[in-house]
Amino acid sequence: MDIYISGYGVVAKEFVQLIHDKAETIASRYSITPKIKGIIIREGIVQSEEGLDLTRLLHYGVGTMAIKDYAKDSHYPIQPLDQMSGHVLIEATSTNANDGEPAYSYIKQALTSHMDVVSISKGALVHHYEELMQLSQSVNRRIKFSGATAAALPTLDVGEYSLAGMTLTRFEGVLNGTTSYILDDMHEHDIDPVVSLQRAQEVGIAEKDPEMDVSGKDSANKLFLLANRFFNQNCHLQDVSVDGIMNVTRNQIADAKVSNQKIVLLASAVMDNQTIHMHVRPTPISMAHPLANLAPKEKGICFYTEEMGRVAVIGGASSPVGAAGAALKDMINLVQANF
Amino acid sequence: MDIYISGYGVVAKEFVQLIHDKAETIASRYSITPKIKGIIIREGIVQSEEGLDLTRLLHYGVGTMAIKDYAKDSHYPIQPLDQMSGHVLIEATSTNANDGEPAYSYIKQALTSHMDVVSISKGALVHHYEELMQLSQSVNRRIKFSGATAAALPTLDVGEYSLAGMTLTRFEGVLNGTTSYILDDMHEHDIDPVVSLQRAQEVGIAEKDPEMDVSGKDSANKLFLLANRFFNQNCHLQDVSVDGIMNVTRNQIADAKVSNQKIVLLASAVMDNQTIHMHVRPTPISMAHPLANLAPKEKGICFYTEEMGRVAVIGGASSPVGAAGAALKDMINLVQANF
Repeated sequence: MDIYISGYGVVAKEFVQLIHDKAETIASRYSITPKIKGIIIREGIVQSEEGLDLTRLLHYGVGTMAIKDYAKDSHYPIQPLDQMSGHVLIEATSTNANDGEPAYSYIKQALTSHMDVVSISKGALVHHYEELMQLSQSVNRRIKFSGATAAALPTLDVGEYSLAGMTLTRFEGVLNGTTSYILDDMHEHDIDPVVSLQRAQEVGIAEKDPEMDVSGKDSANKLFLLANRFFNQNCHLQDVSVDGIMNVTRNQIADAKVSNQKIVLLASAVMDNQTIHMHVRPTPISMAHPLANLAPKEKGICFYTEEMGRVAVIGGASSPVGAAGAALKDMINLVQANF
Repeated sequence: MDIYISGYGVVAKEFVQLIHDKAETIASRYSITPKIKGIIIREGIVQSEEGLDLTRLLHYGVGTMAIKDYAKDSHYPIQPLDQMSGHVLIEATSTNANDGEPAYSYIKQALTSHMDVVSISKGALVHHYEELMQLSQSVNRRIKFSGATAAALPTLDVGEYSLAGMTLTRFEGVLNGTTSYILDDMHEHDIDPVVSLQRAQEVGIAEKDPEMDVSGKDSANKLFLLANRFFNQNCHLQDVSVDGIMNVTRNQIADAKVSNQKIVLLASAVMDNQTIHMHVRPTPISMAHPLANLAPKEKGICFYTEEMGRVAVIGGASSPVGAAGAALKDMINLVQANF
C-alpha cells in the first residue's frame, strides 16, 4: 500500500503519526501494509522507494521546514514532482478558497496515475467537483473526502454507506464547530454575536479571520459537497442560499429559549421533485431535536429517509487527530472496496 | 446478482417489495441487477432460474402460505433444498432463541456454496458466531448482520466502517425499542413497570411474551454480537451481565429526574487491558447524553474512540421496512466490497 501525502500541516503530520503508531494493527486487521512513499510540498517531493523513515520524520515537527530538514539530513534531495506511482494520495494542503490550487493539480495527477484520492482539504472539490468526479470515474478510481466534510463526524459514510439504496428525502446538519460554539455561548450568556466571537477568538476556537465560519460559507461548502454525493448532483456553492450568524440578535435567542428551542446554524438540503433546495441559515430547532444537544464545538447531521425514518449522527472530535483519523478510515475503506 | 431468501415473514416480504420498487434505481446507482432466484421455507424451496415474478408474488401477501399459493399458481413445484447457486442469501427466518435453526443450516449451506450472507435473524449468530465467522473466512465470503443488531440504526456500519482503523475503547447503546418505550412511559407518568408493560402490550409495542425484551436478553444478544465484531472477539451471551427493567422502581425514576437524569436500559462493552466487560442494566444517564433524547421506541449507540472522541448515532425506524432496508444496504455494501 504505497501512500503519497500532499501538504505537511498539522493534520498531515498527525496522519503520519497514526500510520507510525498503528502499522501493526492495520496490517493484522485489514491486511494492509502502509508505506508512505512520498510527501509533496510546494518546492517538490521527498520520496523513497522503501518508504520514508517515519520515526525519524516525526522528530522534525510539522510544516514545510520539517520536510526540508528531514530531506537534508536523510540525504534525500527534494525533487521536482514529475510522477507518482502508488495506491493513494492523501491530499492535505491548506484549503485554497480561491481556486483550489495546488490541491487541484495534485488530485488530477494522482487520478491520472491510477491512484485513489482521500481529500482532507476542501478547495479543489469546491471549485472542480464535477470535473474531478468525472475524471475519477473515467479512470475507475475513487475520491473520498470525509476530512473535508466534518472529518471525524461520519457524514459521508452514513449517507452513502449506511443508507445505501434508501430514498433520502432531505438532510440537515450543524457542520461548523465555531459557529456552534458562538451560538451556544449566546444561548447561555445572553450576549451579542460580536462579543461572543471575540471570546471565541481569545480562547483560540475562532480563527483570526473568522469570515469563512461566521458567514456560513464553510457550512455551505460542506453542504453542497455532501448533497452532490448523496443526490448524485453537480451543484455549486452559488446554489446554496447562505445566511451567517452575525445578524442573530439577543432577542431572537431569547424568543427561541421561551419556546424551548435553540438557534443553530442549520445547513439543509431538500430534494423536491428532482430539484434540490439548499440553505444555510440560523434556525430555531426544538430542544428535543438531536442537533440541539451537541457538546460545545460538536457537529451533527440528520438524515431523513423513506424506509428508515430519521437517522442522526453527532460528535466526532474537531481536532487534527480526528481529521487525520477520518483520512485513515477513508483510506482503509477505499482499499477494501472495489467500487 | 442472484439472491436467495430464507423465511417469508413480514420483513422478507418488505425486502421483496423494496427490490421490486427499487430495481431501476439500484441498477443505475450501483450497477446491480437484483434477481430473486429462490425463497426457502420449511417445506422446501420455490425457485426460478430467470428470477421469481415479484409483481405476482407480492399479490399473495406474507408467510409460508403465500409462497405455497404462489408456487401452485405459477406451476413451480416446491422442491427439497438441495443446492443454492447465487451471490447472496438473505436470512430472514424468525429468530429461534434455542438453537438458531433452521437459519444456522441455511447460512452454512450458503457459505459453502460461496455465497455472501445478510442475516436479519439473530438466532444462528447468537449460538454459532465463532463457527460461522470462521467458515465465512475460510471460504472468503462475508456475513453482514445489520438487521440483527438494531436494523435501521447503523450500529455495525459505523463501528466497523466509519471508525475503521480507530482505537475503540468502549461503546454503549440503547438497543431495544420496547424497553425504551416502557422506561420513557415510567419517566413521563410516574408508574410501575408492570403497568407500563401492560399499556405497551395494549398498543402493540410490547409482544405478548415480552420476556426477551424486558429481561434485557435481546439487548445482550445485540451487544455481544457487536462487541465480537468491533473488538474481534468470540464472546457469548453468558459473558454479558444482564439486568432487566422489571425491578426499576418509581423511586429510582424520581431520583433520576431530580438529578436531571433519565434511566435507560444501557448495553455497554468496555475494553480494558485485553479484557472485555459487558453489561446490560438500567442506568441513569444525564439528560445531556445523546441517548437521553431518543424519540419513543428509538434506539441509539455511542462509540468512544481515542482518535475521534465520541460518535453517537440515533434513530432508524423500528419497522419491517426499516429492517428490510437494513438488509438491502448490507447487500449493496457486500457487493461493492471485496473483503
